[in-house]
Amino acid sequence: MNIVLIGSGNVATVLGKSLKEAGHNIAAIVSRNKEHAMELARILQADSTTDIKHIYTDADLYIIAVADNAVKEVAESLHIQGKIVVHTSGAVSKDILRNVTKNYGVLYPLQSLRKEINYKPVIPLLIDSNNPETLNAIRLLAESISSKVAVANDEQRLKLHVAAVMAANFSNHLYTLTVDYCSRENIPFYMLIPLIQETAIRLNEFAPKDTQTGPAIRGDYTTIQKHLELLADYPQLKSLYESISKSITDFYGK
Amino acid sequence: MNIVLIGSGNVATVLGKSLKEAGHNIAAIVSRNKEHAMELARILQADSTTDIKHIYTDADLYIIAVADNAVKEVAESLHIQGKIVVHTSGAVSKDILRNVTKNYGVLYPLQSLRKEINYKPVIPLLIDSNNPETLNAIRLLAESISSKVAVANDEQRLKLHVAAVMAANFSNHLYTLTVDYCSRENIPFYMLIPLIQETAIRLNEFAPKDTQTGPAIRGDYTTIQKHLELLADYPQLKSLYESISKSITDFYGK
Repeated sequence: MNIVLIGSGNVATVLGKSLKEAGHNIAAIVSRNKEHAMELARILQADSTTDIKHIYTDADLYIIAVADNAVKEVAESLHIQGKIVVHTSGAVSKDILRNVTKNYGVLYPLQSLRKEINYKPVIPLLIDSNNPETLNAIRLLAESISSKVAVANDEQRLKLHVAAVMAANFSNHLYTLTVDYCSRENIPFYMLIPLIQETAIRLNEFAPKDTQTGPAIRGDYTTIQKHLELLADYPQLKSLYESISKSITDFYGK
Repeated sequence: MNIVLIGSGNVATVLGKSLKEAGHNIAAIVSRNKEHAMELARILQADSTTDIKHIYTDADLYIIAVADNAVKEVAESLHIQGKIVVHTSGAVSKDILRNVTKNYGVLYPLQSLRKEINYKPVIPLLIDSNNPETLNAIRLLAESISSKVAVANDEQRLKLHVAAVMAANFSNHLYTLTVDYCSRENIPFYMLIPLIQETAIRLNEFAPKDTQTGPAIRGDYTTIQKHLELLADYPQLKSLYESISKSITDFYGK
């Protein structure tokens, strides 16, 4: 496919590279950040412009890969009847693109994309469209760069977004608080990394409810008490320790 | 080394196999669970007994790999002066072994060990001893089966145990609640697994505080509000969503 990318951040960069590698042509980059636009255009051997009014109009597909709260503004300045236009946001309705073209949809990467990493994570893609032909075209494109593609409407995408926040963002915050604790207590956080990674990796084989360990699921209040004493100087951590432990004992009916 | 394993659960099994593969001899298994003892003895080509009074007394090292609350009882029925005795518990003092022998210590695997998995996770080992010669012997043994070995005294081990609970047990509980939510909302949890794993894997390269994403760190209260509405039927999840989001905004001073 012949593609125009609107945006030059992490999502635009990672999707752009994947699409280029899969054999698609990136015709042009549109981005208000001139430096980023030119850098990405160089990598993808594409044209670039900072003005959406100068957008190349002969592509098959336009991908709006900008911040959630900027999609509306881009949509309002874009009119490409007959072409396919998608946005890449989890929490934005596809219908924000209703007046842009008659063929629109969503290509939402359910992954944390960072342009600076060298390895390639698996990128699950949630897709949607306002009509079956366009959905099919988006699906073919998605499958050319990912082995995990699923159709999800606005409501399902929003629910998966909530789920992603709970499972990934919130875990990451627990890692952050733990790094902070280890650093202040002068104990080696890096010794915990294999356990943290194993906990995530075994999701491939086990349901997490069957692999829960730790004092809360054992109803081991002696250890919980010892732990809370150690956290006396960490009110934020102590409060989360209590609420998550309570959630565990409630969940398993201890 | 010539080794006796006391216990036949996950820790005894995984450590036993690793030690055997590294060229050590497992002389005998002692475990009250006759079936497990015999099964592990078969795998490790070792003798087995269910009675600690019949323990083989000519080994170099005795590893007590039983539940935290059973270490004391084993220690009281064991007297092997001159040999090295270690336990494998994060939250138990090494001095519980004081009367067992003059050379004792700890070999604590900071990993979730499961006998049924086929792949081998990295097993960080925290070691300790009451004297330098024994610590050195334990270190050599630990390094023969793991590339991640660190010395940690009782207090440091307990702190790392708290840290492990926060970073791994609690994350696993978030995964559990998320699986439950996805299943009740009929959305595909498996689409989230790459993101969850990427969040853990990138700890190799980034500090988690620098990779935090999601509505809370952006101060995006509109999205938080949308999410809380979606969680109206999940009081447990809603309450954790609120307390962790608050912790994130507090941490970053939003």
